[in-house]
Amino acid sequence: MKIAWAQLNFHIGNFDANAEKIITHIQEAKRQAADLIVFPELALCGYPPLDFLESNQFIQDNLSYMHKIAAHCDGIAAIVGAPAINDSDTGKKLFNAAYFLSNKKVSQIIKKTLLPNYDVFDEYRYFEPNKTFEIIEYKGHKIALTICEDLWDEQDETFTPLNHSKMYTMSPMSALMAFHPDCMINIAASPFSYVQHQTRLKVLQRNAKKYALPLLYVNHCGAQTELVFDGGSCAFNSKGEMLHNAPFFKEDLRVINLLDSTLKASINITLPSKSELIFDALVCGVSDYFKKQQFKKAILGLSGGIDSALTLVIAVAALGKENVLPVLLPSGFSSDHSIDDAKQLAHNLGCNYEIVPIEDSFQSLLKTLSPQFSNTTFNLAEENIQARLRGVILMAMSNKFGHILLNTSNKSEMSVGYGTLYGDMCGGLSVIGDVYKTEVYDLCHFINREQEIIPHHTIIKPPSAELRPNQKDSDSLPEYNLLDQILFQYIENKKSADEIAAQGFELELVKKIINMVNKNEYKRKQAAPVIRVSPKAFGMGRRMPIVANYKC
Amino acid sequence: MKIAWAQLNFHIGNFDANAEKIITHIQEAKRQAADLIVFPELALCGYPPLDFLESNQFIQDNLSYMHKIAAHCDGIAAIVGAPAINDSDTGKKLFNAAYFLSNKKVSQIIKKTLLPNYDVFDEYRYFEPNKTFEIIEYKGHKIALTICEDLWDEQDETFTPLNHSKMYTMSPMSALMAFHPDCMINIAASPFSYVQHQTRLKVLQRNAKKYALPLLYVNHCGAQTELVFDGGSCAFNSKGEMLHNAPFFKEDLRVINLLDSTLKASINITLPSKSELIFDALVCGVSDYFKKQQFKKAILGLSGGIDSALTLVIAVAALGKENVLPVLLPSGFSSDHSIDDAKQLAHNLGCNYEIVPIEDSFQSLLKTLSPQFSNTTFNLAEENIQARLRGVILMAMSNKFGHILLNTSNKSEMSVGYGTLYGDMCGGLSVIGDVYKTEVYDLCHFINREQEIIPHHTIIKPPSAELRPNQKDSDSLPEYNLLDQILFQYIENKKSADEIAAQGFELELVKKIINMVNKNEYKRKQAAPVIRVSPKAFGMGRRMPIVANYKC
Repeated sequence: MKIAWAQLNFHIGNFDANAEKIITHIQEAKRQAADLIVFPELALCGYPPLDFLESNQFIQDNLSYMHKIAAHCDGIAAIVGAPAINDSDTGKKLFNAAYFLSNKKVSQIIKKTLLPNYDVFDEYRYFEPNKTFEIIEYKGHKIALTICEDLWDEQDETFTPLNHSKMYTMSPMSALMAFHPDCMINIAASPFSYVQHQTRLKVLQRNAKKYALPLLYVNHCGAQTELVFDGGSCAFNSKGEMLHNAPFFKEDLRVINLLDSTLKASINITLPSKSELIFDALVCGVSDYFKKQQFKKAILGLSGGIDSALTLVIAVAALGKENVLPVLLPSGFSSDHSIDDAKQLAHNLGCNYEIVPIEDSFQSLLKTLSPQFSNTTFNLAEENIQARLRGVILMAMSNKFGHILLNTSNKSEMSVGYGTLYGDMCGGLSVIGDVYKTEVYDLCHFINREQEIIPHHTIIKPPSAELRPNQKDSDSLPEYNLLDQILFQYIENKKSADEIAAQGFELELVKKIINMVNKNEYKRKQAAPVIRVSPKAFGMGRRMPIVANYKC
Repeated sequence: MKIAWAQLNFHIGNFDANAEKIITHIQEAKRQAADLIVFPELALCGYPPLDFLESNQFIQDNLSYMHKIAAHCDGIAAIVGAPAINDSDTGKKLFNAAYFLSNKKVSQIIKKTLLPNYDVFDEYRYFEPNKTFEIIEYKGHKIALTICEDLWDEQDETFTPLNHSKMYTMSPMSALMAFHPDCMINIAASPFSYVQHQTRLKVLQRNAKKYALPLLYVNHCGAQTELVFDGGSCAFNSKGEMLHNAPFFKEDLRVINLLDSTLKASINITLPSKSELIFDALVCGVSDYFKKQQFKKAILGLSGGIDSALTLVIAVAALGKENVLPVLLPSGFSSDHSIDDAKQLAHNLGCNYEIVPIEDSFQSLLKTLSPQFSNTTFNLAEENIQARLRGVILMAMSNKFGHILLNTSNKSEMSVGYGTLYGDMCGGLSVIGDVYKTEVYDLCHFINREQEIIPHHTIIKPPSAELRPNQKDSDSLPEYNLLDQILFQYIENKKSADEIAAQGFELELVKKIINMVNKNEYKRKQAAPVIRVSPKAFGMGRRMPIVANYKC
């Protein structure tokens, strides 16, 4: 039996485009003589559809498009992920389902059992968990079809520190073994993080070996605002050896013979480096945000510092140099080298740029506020006015010319609130908000690996917001190398202050940093959506109260 | 048996303060000769603790404070809501639990079975559902203790349009009936909406009647950023007649004799009007945001329009006139009457105010941008510069003097994106972001019911952003009376365009409005947290994709 995987990039709610893409690939798979084509989880509506699932019309549209797709399944079968209605008079109204289409109709609906409801996932918000199991019989074969998390039954509880237990209480694949299947197919919507593919391979290999069955895995590719789907679809033989694998972040159709037991492991994959994976994910994140929103051009503030430099390089890679407008916004506190470094980068990338000095407007605002600010000294208020004036100017240019503002804040700053709300925190999309400052350096070195694109001086100079004379980030923050390690232990690893201190950090410093993270939840509430590349990003996957007072 | 309810206002994560409050009330209940005192759901850590529940330290702190509290339960028993650890090696690591404290120790732990995971609730993110049932035996009585949603087993699926089913597949209270209880106690964290108390009373009465048992219900009061808990604790006899009820939005300790079957329904409650409830909820929301964050003073832009007028009245009611600073920020497009109306309101409330004209800074910015903006005409870009300059000025004063900026946007504007991101959308807290414009009028009439506080002219004049000459909201939007009805059907009632049109609205207009709502998700992503007063507020309870294209 020849099976095609269709690792595709879908657009949430865009049934017309998604159905057309599915039909086109069914036809192509037929041309390539496939017996079956497999699309990812919730392919038809896009993932995650979120509260669109609470709209009756959305569900009805989903069903009518599914019937249109089924009409093309003639001489080929298809597995298409989409929500299905729960006919029972108790329980949530929907299942997260996979439609088996054959003979021009919906032949079978397989439902998801394990519903992830942690980190970025909210599936129990919408779906009833499946409790009955069935197998797909097709062309003399028995296919055990599961949906994403269904193969992750041995997953640990995400509540890391007390992690001695499995999150789930049952195993869908074990239940399916009662039907003596020939092979397993798993359709997924598994978002990227820089560790996800390795974790995923382990889980898939474990399943192939445990059940001694060949396994085909089909994932989404492409970005959905915060979430980037890396694809990485693959096939294993019954020994857990990888037979085929799809590229990352790209659409891919591939016809394979999953059930040919003579097939030997043909590949030994080498994963790209962490920096390369993150860079590609961010380029995909920016590119899809623009394509799917039908935007073309981006604008961003280019300070001469390393964060905006990296953001510009990513934007140019995603959108093309002719579609990205960096704007230099010098103040009286900007150093000459900052302006030179910014210009040099724009030159290296072949970008046009604009220079809009903020000094006159800054002085004008200070004059306007002089009745109120008389007898006060220059402090954070005046620093923030500069950052916010830059926001006003960039947004004015955005409004005037239709360019979308990209935010340039990094994860270290976002963590501790070292950024100005409505100032440098402005932007439609936060490009590097899930990249710690030390990782920003790694990415810049990766970018410069063959030639100097980001000016050397941008990389080596001490980070500074340049909002007062001779300001350095290290005046208010510990060195980033230290800060980032503590942040990582707190945010990604959910360690307590004492546990982090036990790793060799000063307890008082650890507590100070944790309290800064907690206290600045209010700023992150209003931040731009962050492209997620780590296992724990700010945004939908990390939900903390704003009004709270938990002293660590 | 004399039982005390303790309807209290807790602070998320503030174990010191919460435990002290619990202990103080245990002692007071003892003085009043109560046998048992009942605190709300997750009282000890505050509700909702969100991802703090993923911190091991947080859970351990919770347990050690619980033991401190238990030590005070001598001659009195207490029921205290708090998370409990799941000892099983499968399933999520925590239960949402109620601790029964007696004889100075934790005597029993009762676990929540039905975990709400819709709208603002994410309980399945953290908790394993209970599957085993037990009764509390105390002083010769058998108490069926349930936690909030456990009594809502007959609740409809929230997926309204296809709503033919019960959301839950089992009934915890039915299971508890096997133990032949004498009475029911339900501890809750049930947030306010203007329809919630009526719904809640129906559910509670239904349970009392169905099981023919007296019922005590104890809820939180006080606000937690977006969520306001209205209290409304109450007791019913076994006929479902209300015996006692607590005030709304206020702390209350009351000792009652739940098991005295001679008690007749003593009260016939009249609920406050919708406007009064919303007004009190918003005052509570603002007041607690400031108290719990240890802020004292607020600042806001006062335009002379009705939204900022209402916000100011609420802020003054919450914080005191001496703690609220309205700032008039006239531009060249501000009408004289706007400034007069704003001054009159400040005068009526006895507030100081500041006037900071934005014209000079606006001209300065236009000059700065003239190289870029030459040969373009005045449009949205210039309109937004004014709104954003106001944001810069208000935030500068906030930074300089430590006043927290209150946002004044209403729900109609937020719905359709009629507001400037980083401009009038600035603020730490959105006070009326869940109040439609037509409800804003209702609230103003409620406020003026005895005397004119909000100037008559503010109420009767046509709404205008005053960002260009003679601008009116109705230039870009339908009349609010029409707009709000369509928005309500789409947002609260989740109706489709066709269903709304079938109610007598023009289909093209309905589609246009729905598309505006969907398209402006990106703005709401960066909006201030909104105090929730409706059954469907923007924020944590409504989760829509930003990058999406669902054509209605």
